[in-house]
Amino acid sequence: MVEVVGTAPTSAMFITKFVYRRSWKTNMDNIKLYFKDSIYLLNMALTEQQKKEITEQQSQKNTTKRVTSPELEKILYEAIPVLDHGFVRVVDYMGDDSSIVQSARVSYGKGTKKVSTDSGLIKYLMRHRHSTPFEMCEIKYHVKLPIFVARQWIRHRTANVNEYSARYSILDKEFYLPSKENLAAQSTNNRQGRGELINGKQADYILDMLKKDAEHVYANYELMLNEKFDGSTINENNKGLARELARMNLTLNTYTQWYWKTDLLNLLNFLSLRADSHAQYEIRSYADVMIDSLKRWTPITFDAFMDYRVGGMELSAKSKIVIQKMLKGQECDLKSSNLSKREWNELMESFGFKEKIL
Amino acid sequence: MVEVVGTAPTSAMFITKFVYRRSWKTNMDNIKLYFKDSIYLLNMALTEQQKKEITEQQSQKNTTKRVTSPELEKILYEAIPVLDHGFVRVVDYMGDDSSIVQSARVSYGKGTKKVSTDSGLIKYLMRHRHSTPFEMCEIKYHVKLPIFVARQWIRHRTANVNEYSARYSILDKEFYLPSKENLAAQSTNNRQGRGELINGKQADYILDMLKKDAEHVYANYELMLNEKFDGSTINENNKGLARELARMNLTLNTYTQWYWKTDLLNLLNFLSLRADSHAQYEIRSYADVMIDSLKRWTPITFDAFMDYRVGGMELSAKSKIVIQKMLKGQECDLKSSNLSKREWNELMESFGFKEKIL
Amino acid sequence: MVEVVGTAPTSAMFITKFVYRRSWKTNMDNIKLYFKDSIYLLNMALTEQQKKEITEQQSQKNTTKRVTSPELEKILYEAIPVLDHGFVRVVDYMGDDSSIVQSARVSYGKGTKKVSTDSGLIKYLMRHRHSTPFEMCEIKYHVKLPIFVARQWIRHRTANVNEYSARYSILDKEFYLPSKENLAAQSTNNRQGRGELINGKQADYILDMLKKDAEHVYANYELMLNEKFDGSTINENNKGLARELARMNLTLNTYTQWYWKTDLLNLLNFLSLRADSHAQYEIRSYADVMIDSLKRWTPITFDAFMDYRVGGMELSAKSKIVIQKMLKGQECDLKSSNLSKREWNELMESFGFKEKIL
Amino acid sequence: MVEVVGTAPTSAMFITKFVYRRSWKTNMDNIKLYFKDSIYLLNMALTEQQKKEITEQQSQKNTTKRVTSPELEKILYEAIPVLDHGFVRVVDYMGDDSSIVQSARVSYGKGTKKVSTDSGLIKYLMRHRHSTPFEMCEIKYHVKLPIFVARQWIRHRTANVNEYSARYSILDKEFYLPSKENLAAQSTNNRQGRGELINGKQADYILDMLKKDAEHVYANYELMLNEKFDGSTINENNKGLARELARMNLTLNTYTQWYWKTDLLNLLNFLSLRADSHAQYEIRSYADVMIDSLKRWTPITFDAFMDYRVGGMELSAKSKIVIQKMLKGQECDLKSSNLSKREWNELMESFGFKEKIL
Repeated sequence: MVEVVGTAPTSAMFITKFVYRRSWKTNMDNIKLYFKDSIYLLNMALTEQQKKEITEQQSQKNTTKRVTSPELEKILYEAIPVLDHGFVRVVDYMGDDSSIVQSARVSYGKGTKKVSTDSGLIKYLMRHRHSTPFEMCEIKYHVKLPIFVARQWIRHRTANVNEYSARYSILDKEFYLPSKENLAAQSTNNRQGRGELINGKQADYILDMLKKDAEHVYANYELMLNEKFDGSTINENNKGLARELARMNLTLNTYTQWYWKTDLLNLLNFLSLRADSHAQYEIRSYADVMIDSLKRWTPITFDAFMDYRVGGMELSAKSKIVIQKMLKGQECDLKSSNLSKREWNELMESFGFKEKIL
Repeated sequence: MVEVVGTAPTSAMFITKFVYRRSWKTNMDNIKLYFKDSIYLLNMALTEQQKKEITEQQSQKNTTKRVTSPELEKILYEAIPVLDHGFVRVVDYMGDDSSIVQSARVSYGKGTKKVSTDSGLIKYLMRHRHSTPFEMCEIKYHVKLPIFVARQWIRHRTANVNEYSARYSILDKEFYLPSKENLAAQSTNNRQGRGELINGKQADYILDMLKKDAEHVYANYELMLNEKFDGSTINENNKGLARELARMNLTLNTYTQWYWKTDLLNLLNFLSLRADSHAQYEIRSYADVMIDSLKRWTPITFDAFMDYRVGGMELSAKSKIVIQKMLKGQECDLKSSNLSKREWNELMESFGFKEKIL
Repeated sequence: MVEVVGTAPTSAMFITKFVYRRSWKTNMDNIKLYFKDSIYLLNMALTEQQKKEITEQQSQKNTTKRVTSPELEKILYEAIPVLDHGFVRVVDYMGDDSSIVQSARVSYGKGTKKVSTDSGLIKYLMRHRHSTPFEMCEIKYHVKLPIFVARQWIRHRTANVNEYSARYSILDKEFYLPSKENLAAQSTNNRQGRGELINGKQADYILDMLKKDAEHVYANYELMLNEKFDGSTINENNKGLARELARMNLTLNTYTQWYWKTDLLNLLNFLSLRADSHAQYEIRSYADVMIDSLKRWTPITFDAFMDYRVGGMELSAKSKIVIQKMLKGQECDLKSSNLSKREWNELMESFGFKEKIL
Repeated sequence: MVEVVGTAPTSAMFITKFVYRRSWKTNMDNIKLYFKDSIYLLNMALTEQQKKEITEQQSQKNTTKRVTSPELEKILYEAIPVLDHGFVRVVDYMGDDSSIVQSARVSYGKGTKKVSTDSGLIKYLMRHRHSTPFEMCEIKYHVKLPIFVARQWIRHRTANVNEYSARYSILDKEFYLPSKENLAAQSTNNRQGRGELINGKQADYILDMLKKDAEHVYANYELMLNEKFDGSTINENNKGLARELARMNLTLNTYTQWYWKTDLLNLLNFLSLRADSHAQYEIRSYADVMIDSLKRWTPITFDAFMDYRVGGMELSAKSKIVIQKMLKGQECDLKSSNLSKREWNELMESFGFKEKIL
C-alpha cells in the first residue's frame, strides 16, 4: 500500500528521493492545494484575531547573528491546514543542518576534517544511528488537532507541550468529521487498521450520526456552562457548571490546540512512527505536513532520513540468513528459516517475492 | 479550605502527621469504607474475569532475596475503588525506605556513618531536595480512570505507560458521573476552580444530561461498530466502522485503563501536584488513594513528604523580608513590601493574619 | 545592577548566608573585568583558529521573522572566560520572555486576558511553579571545562550534549590549577565543603604538585600516543597506543569541551543548584557567567527567578508553625517545635535570630 | 549456551563480523571462570565489609506476592568481576517476561487473545519496535568501574544514578591497568578504534608507566589531603586540602562506583550500543556481564533481543534496492547503486560477498 523504494516490482528505477511514501505524495498534493487556495482554506480554520496575529508575526524583520533556515522562514507562522479544522504552524526553530555538523565536529575534534562534506557527515551519523548531534536543533509547532489525535501524539514524551486548558477556558465549537474517502470499515486482518471504504447509505448515516452527536453534546455543554461560546449567558437565574466538569460531556473529536516543541532527533522519531502507513490516517495527516517543514528546515537531514529510516528496513538475524541463502541460490523455505509464517510473509513481501508468500 | 498544618488558628496542637489535608481525611474515610464494604464496591468496578485474576495474583507466595514492603504486600493487586467506576491497584514495586538510604550511602561513602538513623538521613535528603536517592524505588499501578483525568495525568512525562487501545479493542460502557456533592458551579474568582454546589432541579437536570448523553453516544458507537459490547453483531448486512474512527464519538468521561509505572521521586512530584487542593477533584481522588500506598510502601519517606512538601510552603525573597520585619515588630505594609496585592494576601492568609488581608 | 532582593544597602541586616551569595558578587566583578580586559583574557583561552571562527560567526547578519533577544545577541558566540583556561559561549537560542507568555496564553485561552502584563504573568507562573511555559525557550552553550566539573554537570540529564571525544582526538594540554585564593582546606563541619584558606609554603607546595603532576602525566600521555600534541611523531619505530586507552593516564583537571543545550526550565534548575553557595566553587564559576546570559536573554524571568528561587526559601510544616508562634508572640523552643537541633538552627539563622541558635 | 542466531557450527559460514561478536564469546569464558573461581576473584575486588554485606543480603528469604525471576535470584547481590578491580552486582529488579505480556495485553484488550503464546507476543513487540511494554520491567545494578568508563556510561540519560562522591569521601586506591592482550595500538583506519597489539618492551614500558603514574598521583592525593586512605593523618601540623579539590589530581583510570537503575527498554538500548563490537573494550566488558543478567531475568526477551537487535541489521532504501536486484540476478554495481563506496563495502561484507568489496 505504502510504497517504499523498490517494493513495487517495476517502480525501482523511477523512484526519486521525494516520493518514497504514498502519504508523502498525498502531502505533496496537499501542499500544492494549500499554496493555491490558502486564503479560502484559512477562512475555515482561523478566527479573525488569529489571522491578524499571524500577519503581525510574519511582518517581523529582525536581525540576528544566529543561523537561519531561509526555506523555513518562508512558511514561518503560516497555518497549514490539516483535516477539516486543524492546522500546523511552525512558530520558532533553532539551528539547521550546519548545527548538526558543528556539534559532531566538537565531538570528533580534528579527526572530522577527513570527512569532506557536511552531507557525507550527516549521512554517516544517520546510518550509524548517532543521536546527540541531531538533538542540537529544535523546532516549535502550534497545532490544532482533534482530542483523540492529541491522545496519541502526547505519548511522545520527549517534547515540551502547552495545551489549551478546558478547565480554564471554553473549547471552540469545532469537531473533526472524516471525509467520505476516509470512512473505512474495520480491517478484517489487522485489529488496529482500516479495511474497505464504507459507502452509500451507511456512510451517510454514520457521518450524519457523528455530526449530530457532536453538535448535540456541544449544545448541552453550553447549557451546563450556562454560557454560549460567544460569552453570552443563557439563563440569568442559573449558575454555570464548572468548566472542568462540563467538558467531560464533549466527544473525542472535539478540537484542541497546543504548542509542541521538540528537538530534531525526537521529531524524526515522531515522524518515522506517525508518518508510517500503520499510523492512524488522522495523525499521519499531521506528520505529512510536518515532513514538509523538515525538508525546508534541514534538507540534508531530510534526505538521510528518507533513505535510512522511512525507506529503510530492519532484518533480524534469522531473516538475514534467509536473504543470504537466497543470494547464493541456496534452497530456503519457511521450515528451515526458523521464522514464523507471519515473519516469512512479511520478509518475502518486503523484497517483492509475492510468489513465495504462504 | 485545605488544612495545612497550622493554618487554622486553633488546630496546630491537634494536628497529627496523618491529617494534614482535608482530602486526606476523606481518603481515610474511603479506605475504611473500602475495608468494610470491599465486596460490594468491587462488584461495581470489576468483571468476573478481573476478580478471578486478582484472586490468582494475590494467592502467589514467592520467595525472594529482594527487600519487601510488608504493608504494601497486604494490598498488592487489590482494586481500591475511586470515583464511580474507577480503581487503583498496586501491581508491582521495587525497593523500600532502606533502598533510599543504601543509595545515599554509596554516594557519601564512609561519610554517612555520622548520620545516625535512616529516618534522619531520609529527612535530610528531603529537606535539601536531594533527588537521585528517591529515584531508586519504583512502583507500578493499574488504574481505571475517565479519559479527561487520563489527559491530565499523562502530562507527567517521567513515567512508563501502557494504555488500553481503543484502536484495537472496544471500550467498556462505563462513564464517570459526578456525585451530587461534587457538582459545583464555576468559581467566580478562580478561573480553573469550582465554587458553590449546584443544587435542586438544576443539579438533577445536569446529571440527567450527562448520563443520557454518555449513553446516547455509546449506543451510536455500537451502531457504528455494528457490534454490541458483548461481541454480538447488530446488522449482518453492514460492515462495522473502524474502531479507531468510531471511538471519536465517545465523550471524555468514558473510562479507560492503564498500567502506570514511575519512580518514587516522580511519584512524589505527581502527588504534590495532584493531591493538592488546586488539583481537580477527580484526579485528586486518585492521588489520595495513592498517598495511602505511599504510606504503606515507604513510611519514613511518607512522613518527610508530608512535613516538607505537602504541609510546607515557599517564601520568596520579598516575602521573607516581610516576615522578618513582622518578627522584629517592625512596621510592614503592602506598599513597602514590594509585593503585589495578591501575593500579600496569600502570604497573610498563609500565616493566619486574616485581619491583614486587603 | 543585578539585585538579589535584599542585597541593597538598607536591607543588608536581614540577609543570611542563603541570600547573600558570595559567588554572585564575584560574578559581577568578573563580568566587569571581562568587559574591560576581554582581549587579553581571550588570548589565554582560545586558539587562533577558534578566534577566527568566532569572528566569522559574529559577523553574520541574518534576517529572521523569529523573535530575537537583542541583549543576548550582543554577546552571541563571545567566549567569556571562566577559571584559568575555560570559557562559556552562547552559540544559539530560541525564544525570549514573550515566548513564555505566548505559551501560557495558549493554555489559558481567553482567560489570561485578565492578567494585565507579561511581567505579572511570568511572576505568577514562577510563584506557582508552573513548568511547561518555561520549557518553550531553548539555549545552547559551548563550554570548555575541567573534567571533574564536567562530571558534576552531566548529572543534569534533561539536556543535550556533544562532548569532545578523547577516543577520537587528542586532548589539549590544558589543566585547571586553582588560584591561591581558592585553595581551601577541607571544612571541618561540612563534609562536602571548604574551610579556611591554605596559605604559605603548604599552598605553594600543593600548587606546585598539581602543576607538575598534570604536566608529568600529559607528557607520558604523549609518549604513549607516540605523538606530540602538535601532531609530530615522537619515535618513528614505535606504534602509538590507542587514544581511547592513553587518555586514562590524564588527571581529572584536564580540560574538555562540549556543546550543551537545554530549555529554560532546566537551565533554571541547573542554575539554582549550581549557582548556590553549596555548589563547588569551580562549577559555580560557570553558573555565575550563565546567570548573566539568563539576564540578557529573558530579563523578566531572571527577576522572578532571583526573587522566588535564588533569594527564596522553603518552610516545612513544622517550621511554619514555629514562625507562626513567634509572629504571635507565643513561646517556642526546640523541644516544642519537634524540629531537630540542626533544623532549628538553620531556621533561626535564616530569619536572623542569632541569639536563638543552640 | 548463549546462541546468537547463526553462531552454531553449521551456519558459521554466513556470519560476518557484525553478528560474530568476539566480546560475546569472551564473556562466556569469563562467566565460566567466574563460577569456578569466584572466591579467589572476589578477594581482589571487595573489602571484608562488602563481602559481609553481600552475605547478609544473600541470606534474606522474604515472601512476596510479586513475580520473581528464579534464575536472577540465584546471582542476586553477587559481585561478578569485570576488568581488574571492577564488578557488576544485580541488587534489585521488578517484573519479568510476564510483566511485558501483561502490559501489552492491557493495551490490546480482548484483541490479544489471538496471539497464542507469550513468546510470540514478545517477539512481535520486539520486531515492530514497540517500546512501552519493555519499560514495565526495572533493574538496579551496583557497579564498580574506572572513571573513563563511567564517563561513557553516564551518557545514557534515561537511568537513575547514585555515584560515590569524591567531594564527600576519599576514593579507593584502585586503578584500572589493561591486561597485555588488550594493549592495542591506535587503529590506522578507524579513528576511534584499536589496531594491532603492542608487544614486547614497548608494552612493558607503557604498562609500567600507567601503573607508576597512577600510584604517583594517588600518593600526592594523600599528601594534599594530609590523610592516608586508612584515615591516619600524615602531618599533624598541616591542614588537608578540601577533598573536592584534591581529587582533581587523580587519573581517569581510578575506580569509582555507583548504583545504576534503568528499565528493560533502556537496558536493551544500552546493551545494543555498549556490547557492540564498536564499543570500547572496557565498557563492553561490563555490557557482556549484564547481558548474562538479562538472559537470567527475561529469557524470552533476551532471545528476541539477540535475534532482532544484536544479530540483526538495518538496510537503507538504496541498499535494499541493491539486494533486491541481486536477488533477481540483475546487474548491480557501485555506480548504479547510488551508495557511497564505504556503504557499498559495508553492505557487501555484511552479506558475505567479499569478492565484491572495492
